[in-house]
Amino acid sequence: MKVTFNISKERKFSEWYSEILKKAEILDIRYGVKGFVVIMPWGARMLEKMYRIYESAMQRTGHEPTFFPTLIPEDNFKLEAEHVEGFTPEVFWLENKKGEERLALRPTSETAMYQMYSLWIRSWRDLPLKIYQRANVFRYETKATRPLIRSREFYWIESHNCFATKEEALKQVKEDIEMTDSVMHRVFGIPFLPMKRPEWDKFPGAEFTIGSDSILPDGRVIQQPSTHMLGTHFSKAFNIKFVNEREKEEFVWQTCYGPAISRMMASVISLHGDDNGLVLPYTIAPIQAVIVPMHSEKKSNEIKKLCQKISQNFFNERIDSIVDYSKKRPGEKFFYWEMKGVPFRIEIGEEELKAKAATVFVRDTREKIKVSLKDLFEEIRNLGAEYDARLTGKAEEFLDRRIVDCDTKEGVKKTISGGKIARFGFCSIENKGKKCAAFVEEECSARLMGVRYDKDEKAKGKCVFCNKEASVVAYAAKSY
Amino acid sequence: MKVTFNISKERKFSEWYSEILKKAEILDIRYGVKGFVVIMPWGARMLEKMYRIYESAMQRTGHEPTFFPTLIPEDNFKLEAEHVEGFTPEVFWLENKKGEERLALRPTSETAMYQMYSLWIRSWRDLPLKIYQRANVFRYETKATRPLIRSREFYWIESHNCFATKEEALKQVKEDIEMTDSVMHRVFGIPFLPMKRPEWDKFPGAEFTIGSDSILPDGRVIQQPSTHMLGTHFSKAFNIKFVNEREKEEFVWQTCYGPAISRMMASVISLHGDDNGLVLPYTIAPIQAVIVPMHSEKKSNEIKKLCQKISQNFFNERIDSIVDYSKKRPGEKFFYWEMKGVPFRIEIGEEELKAKAATVFVRDTREKIKVSLKDLFEEIRNLGAEYDARLTGKAEEFLDRRIVDCDTKEGVKKTISGGKIARFGFCSIENKGKKCAAFVEEECSARLMGVRYDKDEKAKGKCVFCNKEASVVAYAAKSY
Repeated sequence: MKVTFNISKERKFSEWYSEILKKAEILDIRYGVKGFVVIMPWGARMLEKMYRIYESAMQRTGHEPTFFPTLIPEDNFKLEAEHVEGFTPEVFWLENKKGEERLALRPTSETAMYQMYSLWIRSWRDLPLKIYQRANVFRYETKATRPLIRSREFYWIESHNCFATKEEALKQVKEDIEMTDSVMHRVFGIPFLPMKRPEWDKFPGAEFTIGSDSILPDGRVIQQPSTHMLGTHFSKAFNIKFVNEREKEEFVWQTCYGPAISRMMASVISLHGDDNGLVLPYTIAPIQAVIVPMHSEKKSNEIKKLCQKISQNFFNERIDSIVDYSKKRPGEKFFYWEMKGVPFRIEIGEEELKAKAATVFVRDTREKIKVSLKDLFEEIRNLGAEYDARLTGKAEEFLDRRIVDCDTKEGVKKTISGGKIARFGFCSIENKGKKCAAFVEEECSARLMGVRYDKDEKAKGKCVFCNKEASVVAYAAKSY
Repeated sequence: MKVTFNISKERKFSEWYSEILKKAEILDIRYGVKGFVVIMPWGARMLEKMYRIYESAMQRTGHEPTFFPTLIPEDNFKLEAEHVEGFTPEVFWLENKKGEERLALRPTSETAMYQMYSLWIRSWRDLPLKIYQRANVFRYETKATRPLIRSREFYWIESHNCFATKEEALKQVKEDIEMTDSVMHRVFGIPFLPMKRPEWDKFPGAEFTIGSDSILPDGRVIQQPSTHMLGTHFSKAFNIKFVNEREKEEFVWQTCYGPAISRMMASVISLHGDDNGLVLPYTIAPIQAVIVPMHSEKKSNEIKKLCQKISQNFFNERIDSIVDYSKKRPGEKFFYWEMKGVPFRIEIGEEELKAKAATVFVRDTREKIKVSLKDLFEEIRNLGAEYDARLTGKAEEFLDRRIVDCDTKEGVKKTISGGKIARFGFCSIENKGKKCAAFVEEECSARLMGVRYDKDEKAKGKCVFCNKEASVVAYAAKSY
């Protein structure tokens, strides 16, 4: 029997990742332009499901959908000084059309949206303004690109909110992190550490940035959604003012949040997969159950009919399934759908017909269980919920185990080079701590991730680098 | 009471259109770059619903979703000679990055997709290949732009299919037109004439083009989806070959189809709206029913509770509703939601509470009907289906009445200048007929739309222009 995929994810993650993207036909890297890939149907269906779930979470928290232009006039782009400085090297510009303004391909949409906000917002009655868009954005990455992880075009959602007060804006930062938790962590199974970034690593134009760091199997962290407290930097640059209840003009307080769905797909693929291929969460798998009619001399018609009936029933119950009628041998079908990460395989043969019970193969545990036909769709739903909880639990454990407390500079270095996340006392994530961070960046080729935003970890003792009093507990790891 | 919208659509269509886009907050034209607009929440929600319906029609007919890069290398773009000639004036180019290839913003994706097809297709087993993508595309329009109708960035779906035989490709052209009919006509309520374009007006690189011409209230036609029989022009340019069942290499036969969802939104808004604002089809209205609690001294709590219960029930039954709790007077609420095009307004007051029946106002007919609370969601669904059928019927009648048979050149001119569609005997839509078409284009400032593809209209008599034998029945009208 032909094993369609067999690479050790633990030992050769980089090879595993490239090969599974190709084999499972998630994307094709042969487009021929650095940093641009073609998302193929299996990837596109997953991406679409992830988008829908994330967008519904956006709407549930009061965000309204919009579509802003992909192109941004150069003049807008230049309005916020730090922002333009931070993003300019990454911008794709368009060739000038005669007599028209120079335009940029959006790397992010602050400068497209905020000029409109200054027209839309007049009074406190217009606040809060909570808006998001589903969009593709473009960044001229000069480092090595890697499909879905670091691309020059990627697929994201960005929300851009305005409030009357600082307190409301800070509450929104919390809501954003809760959304990352309720969707990326609880639904997609990607746990993360919400890290307040050091002063020198915040978003260009923000007061502070919370980056949600997740982990990949090789122990390197990957920044998933980040949320930014913009304060009034942009509202001052773009003149977004409102008249408050006491009839006084004020600048709005702003936040923005950018869940990159294509990047989350990289985490989903990497974290849950195993040596035999993809293991997709039930909730976002393009096909949640594949139904395989088994060989039979006498009963093949009855078997086909039953498969069809199950599939129709699943459709009515909103479970995505197909019947694999292809001419391949069962073993080939099994390996193919396992490699594709389909959570459940439902085998229907003579035995199942007789017993009025399906044989259900579960992708992650590789167990086979018998399920009575009359309970099938309900049972698949229950099994699906358990399956997703299992994937999430495993991923949480993987992340937790990777965090190592360190007391010394050498300990930090050793931990990081061993593919783990170092946690240690640190002098400061304000600019005065930048010198100490240099050790992490230069000696360890790693990232000083910052400090936890979700909990107050009390610093004890000294900074492991400069030996001054530690003001915070910081984290560092190799990073994508 | 303040009437929020009151412009005669019939007499001042252009003003009506601009004003309703603004008033109903469908989009904002103040972005500041010619041909680019901001789609606001009311428009974005409608666009999203229309996308989902169209995409599910795509998938139902066996098309797989994909996402291709927005940028196309110049070399690809140049491979098909007619295509490059036709599109080059409309292309936005990117400023060159040092040492990298010049890139175009896609005006359409043939030249992005087909190089990949040449890698994906090897044998007859890989055919048919039916792929679509949801995408925004960019065209440097030099004519006057008009929101949603002619923009420099628009939102569409494009499908690009490959077949082993010419017959299958021709069948696909029919399937595309059927899809336009089953979705745009039957669901969105936009009837159309599927016209085979004259030789000189076909898609650059196609064998022939079918343009689906719809009509706007001012009598001008607007091209909605077009479908193109590409033959083997592109497969030869991009080297897309397959080995057939007799082990011989052949070029694939191709078709492509491009429903522009944002442009369909223009038709939906224009055709169904009335002097009081939008009238949105039930199926795609962002809010299908607005529930208005009426003033009451004593029962206001009970009324609120009932409104909430109805809304929850609607949510469970997948009817999109909201309760309007705002402090505005009922009359203001009424006019606001009428202007926004919400199909049903459900009034709940003391009288309704007592009678256990809601008062339902129907947007298009402006009738009020009583519906028992226990039948409410089912009744709304039934009323919704009737309502959509009414809008479609009205639009069909409007289109049918506009077609006028003409026997003379003068008749054609008079019909066209009267805002109608002229139908007449015509010598030929091959290149030899181009001279006669010049009369339509130059003397009438109109478009020779071509001949019907959905039925065989027999030509009788002479060409109204050159007096030679008419070979076809042609249509002409002013066009967007």
